[in-house]
Amino acid sequence: MRAHIITIGDEILIGQIIDTNSAFISKELIKIGIEVSKIISIGDSKKEILSSLKNSHNKCDIVIITGGLGPTNDDITKEVFCDFFEDKLVHNSAILRHIEKLFEKFVDNPINDLNRAQAYLPSKAKLIPNLYGTAAGMSIKKNNTLFISLPGVPFEMKSMITEFIIPQLQTDYKCPVIINKTLITYGKGESYIAKKLKKFESDIPSNFKLAYLPNLGRVRLRISAKGTNNIVLEKTMDKLVAQLYEILGKIIIGYETTNPIESEIGKILIKNKKTLSLVESLTGGMLASRLTSIPGASKYFKGGIVAYNSSIKKTLVNVKNKTIDKYSVVSSNTANEMVVNCKKIMNSDYAISTTGNAGPSKGDSNQPIGKIFISLATPKQVKSFEFNFGKNREKNIHKTVNKALELLFSELLTRD
Amino acid sequence: MRAHIITIGDEILIGQIIDTNSAFISKELIKIGIEVSKIISIGDSKKEILSSLKNSHNKCDIVIITGGLGPTNDDITKEVFCDFFEDKLVHNSAILRHIEKLFEKFVDNPINDLNRAQAYLPSKAKLIPNLYGTAAGMSIKKNNTLFISLPGVPFEMKSMITEFIIPQLQTDYKCPVIINKTLITYGKGESYIAKKLKKFESDIPSNFKLAYLPNLGRVRLRISAKGTNNIVLEKTMDKLVAQLYEILGKIIIGYETTNPIESEIGKILIKNKKTLSLVESLTGGMLASRLTSIPGASKYFKGGIVAYNSSIKKTLVNVKNKTIDKYSVVSSNTANEMVVNCKKIMNSDYAISTTGNAGPSKGDSNQPIGKIFISLATPKQVKSFEFNFGKNREKNIHKTVNKALELLFSELLTRD
Repeated sequence: MRAHIITIGDEILIGQIIDTNSAFISKELIKIGIEVSKIISIGDSKKEILSSLKNSHNKCDIVIITGGLGPTNDDITKEVFCDFFEDKLVHNSAILRHIEKLFEKFVDNPINDLNRAQAYLPSKAKLIPNLYGTAAGMSIKKNNTLFISLPGVPFEMKSMITEFIIPQLQTDYKCPVIINKTLITYGKGESYIAKKLKKFESDIPSNFKLAYLPNLGRVRLRISAKGTNNIVLEKTMDKLVAQLYEILGKIIIGYETTNPIESEIGKILIKNKKTLSLVESLTGGMLASRLTSIPGASKYFKGGIVAYNSSIKKTLVNVKNKTIDKYSVVSSNTANEMVVNCKKIMNSDYAISTTGNAGPSKGDSNQPIGKIFISLATPKQVKSFEFNFGKNREKNIHKTVNKALELLFSELLTRD
Repeated sequence: MRAHIITIGDEILIGQIIDTNSAFISKELIKIGIEVSKIISIGDSKKEILSSLKNSHNKCDIVIITGGLGPTNDDITKEVFCDFFEDKLVHNSAILRHIEKLFEKFVDNPINDLNRAQAYLPSKAKLIPNLYGTAAGMSIKKNNTLFISLPGVPFEMKSMITEFIIPQLQTDYKCPVIINKTLITYGKGESYIAKKLKKFESDIPSNFKLAYLPNLGRVRLRISAKGTNNIVLEKTMDKLVAQLYEILGKIIIGYETTNPIESEIGKILIKNKKTLSLVESLTGGMLASRLTSIPGASKYFKGGIVAYNSSIKKTLVNVKNKTIDKYSVVSSNTANEMVVNCKKIMNSDYAISTTGNAGPSKGDSNQPIGKIFISLATPKQVKSFEFNFGKNREKNIHKTVNKALELLFSELLTRD
């Protein structure tokens, strides 16, 4: 079962927005055994949309199109659908009632004819309701390909995918089982790992595939498998993962789940009835933001201090003048004092501190750009880590956040 | 001048990573007048890569391909290039020397034959150096289309684009001037705006284009223009923008610059020698993270408190028990007390507080999910804002962050 995704919008082609819709849709489809084999982004152009629909027709089973369903002149997906399916627009009173209701509830200007025009659909189309917006979705089958058109607004699109499209596809199509497992390695390059895995790769069953994903100091190893029986696949997967642990040893620092690492951290903290707090300098709130993106984070995350300016490290986190004067704000001594005091101030079981020079220019410390310290306070001790991540600010911040989460996760796994 | 982008990697098609490379490349190309007309993402499959190269050949002037240049078995771009260009791989000693140097400096395991194999390029290819990694880039022209292949690791790809490819393209191609301007409106839907702009749209010069970008409570209006003379284009652009201000009035809350709003905020604060601090509940550190993503943020951003748990609001931010008991943690009273105390604790000129129920379940307050309060303390007063953003957690957090930044930006513009 193969799918194409077509995202429509000039804003994607000029780089004004990053197309996150495709990744979301791909992830949801693969969960039910539908593989995306191509993602295409094109502008709000009739010619380009039409040619993309033609190109995907009969090349795959499902085409999911996002964008171009709004009420304005640059929204032309319905018009192109009519061309492609040799169809015409007809009025749909259910959609109009829905639009009227949305206006009554949420909009303070009166409904106008552009809004009312959104109640038209191609006559052959099946309606896909949009509970959160005025742009209805639709699907039409042509020969062996099902074309599904959704609005480009991520929030509206996402709920339509999970609430309507996935259940419908599961009913209508018999799909294979596809599973993935990704191991995270740290400290060695992909060529080093590939050499070690030469025999492993040549012996891997033909329905299994190994991929290398290097980025920001780690190489992720993804094994994917396709088959008909989930239990059989999982069993072979477990065997292969065990082999990888045997071959690569301790450079494997954990696995990537479908859930982000911050969600796995949360689960363990809840299970162990432990709490966490943060004091961030270099990472400037991003670590807190990652943790609080998870629903229910308030059960274990007490809070954080973004001690960006040195004065805040002193006044609010009680780091001693002496420590900063002697070792500078970018030092393991400062990181340790930050984490110990944070744990006390917040009355938490675990705490993390980050400090470093992110660049491009040096801050309140003479340490080189890229020099980074992370301290981790556990119920029993304080662990201190030092890194040198290079000269790129964005990279330094992101790498430190990832690293801090990984260190905490490893710590929690060991004690679990 | 038209370009296609092809990003290669199974990880994109299963949604394991979001393709941010394309947006970066598009943005850089449009700056020098090259328009991206299509972005295609495909897997690590010889057949798919070959067919994509063929599809783009002679359909555009430039094809930029990312991914598939690593040392492992799943990296097959060079092999496909040899097929497509009827070429073979030859050894390049400059690349080998570079790889050896990188290993000496940064890698603690010895160089192996997989790394050495990265020193081969198709004989027709022109080398594009990769200063930060072992995977060299390359370019080959076939008829009227120039094919450029770059590694998929964002950090490496980005420096190759800005340091080598953009300067080269500017020398080799004569491109038109393309400019964009985006106005941000707040509080009205796109259909309302489109009605108001009917005449404006029909009168717009043919080389100008208006687009509507609705998301998270705001509609952005982008005017783009193509021509040969920058001064002429800018002049017309200014006239059109002035017309939009006249027609739409105060629902326009500002313009989107190439720089993000947090960078514009930073510039004004530096100019006015003012400082900022934050106390975040609902936004959980994301507001701080956005502000500290900007180099030099330490000049005006003193720090923040992520007062996630109610106890932290009391102990660290000194919000009175009485206030929370009487009005709950999700109230303008609590938000105001948070912001006033934060400004005092951090000794800053401005401060922002956020509190609310992000959902999916209620926290320490009985207020409905989506009810959100933002308070803004200026040197002279405290302003309080109340919103209802709906039931989606992610949306609530992002909308509140955007809104808080916009409120501060508007405030700073008025006083500027």
